Amino acid sequence: MTAPRRVRLTPKARREQLLALGVRMLATRTLDDLSVEDLAEEAGISRGLLFHYFRNKQEFHRAVVSHATEQMISLTEPDPSLPPLEQLSAVLEKYLDYVLSHYEVYAYLIRGHARTDEEVFAVVEETRVTLANRVRDNLHLLDLPNDDISYLAIRGWLAFVEEVVVKWVPEQKVSREEVLRLFASSLPAVIAAAH
Amino acid sequence: MTAPRRVRLTPKARREQLLALGVRMLATRTLDDLSVEDLAEEAGISRGLLFHYFRNKQEFHRAVVSHATEQMISLTEPDPSLPPLEQLSAVLEKYLDYVLSHYEVYAYLIRGHARTDEEVFAVVEETRVTLANRVRDNLHLLDLPNDDISYLAIRGWLAFVEEVVVKWVPEQKVSREEVLRLFASSLPAVIAAAH
Repeated sequence: MTAPRRVRLTPKARREQLLALGVRMLATRTLDDLSVEDLAEEAGISRGLLFHYFRNKQEFHRAVVSHATEQMISLTEPDPSLPPLEQLSAVLEKYLDYVLSHYEVYAYLIRGHARTDEEVFAVVEETRVTLANRVRDNLHLLDLPNDDISYLAIRGWLAFVEEVVVKWVPEQKVSREEVLRLFASSLPAVIAAAH
Repeated sequence: MTAPRRVRLTPKARREQLLALGVRMLATRTLDDLSVEDLAEEAGISRGLLFHYFRNKQEFHRAVVSHATEQMISLTEPDPSLPPLEQLSAVLEKYLDYVLSHYEVYAYLIRGHARTDEEVFAVVEETRVTLANRVRDNLHLLDLPNDDISYLAIRGWLAFVEEVVVKWVPEQKVSREEVLRLFASSLPAVIAAAH
């Protein structure tokens, strides 16, 4: 009999694994409650080894938030094989599912809680820019004008969606279908309102 | 000759005066930069006397933010003598002027900067509830349905307006008239999109 061999991960793979674990742990707790100690315990590694990957709690938090937002951006990539309106609906559905499975931390980041550091806010704001640019680059598919006021309306619409989802999840007074319809139909509505 | 008599203010009046001064000072600086020392100097009173009115910097900041939001709520009170759409436009114009003259602190509060304490965020959130209720109570004037999804759409629309104004002010790539039109026409647009 041989002892079970421990899989030796490359530093990059180990770092990825720790970040993925951090994001999963954020599904049920906020950033304030995500301690380096808990993560080390869940990952089955020492606190010392963890600090080899992240110099301190702040760096770990920033990395986890970056990882989560990159994941959300890639999961909500539009599928160009679908007709434009279906693309938009599919993106919004994936977005809603992502928020639902990471609600605590999403609401925490969107609402800009105290104690969070400026660099974490910067990551959230960069994500908004990425999403707004993606919407802008697809406006022509929906026959919507692409100009300065449309871009302002898109930024506003992203804030609209964030606010509605954060308010909707805890109460769910209206159905998921109604919320998704509101998201999809409000985008062309505000762009039209801008012109 | 008699020496100029100093006007003796009641404690309540003095407190109001200090808060009004605090709000004016916030026109050009953020909450982080509003020190109790600066306020005492501007008001021509001692730091000790100021602490008679506000126990500490935190209490002072909360009181100033409450004062500013109450001022904004009262300045944007709709005028029922106007036709409904004009009421909405007039309210939005007064809101925009208020933001323009307190931009630094408005953007700071809306964007939820770190270092701000939770009670200040709570004041901002209460203000949103007050404004959302006011819009809801006037929906019938615009022949718009008043139900749960309308309320969600109103909350989202307030976030839309906040985001657009914060993004618009520093760049002003589109005109003030275009922004005001976007605000006014996006409200019925998102409510319609919700149904």
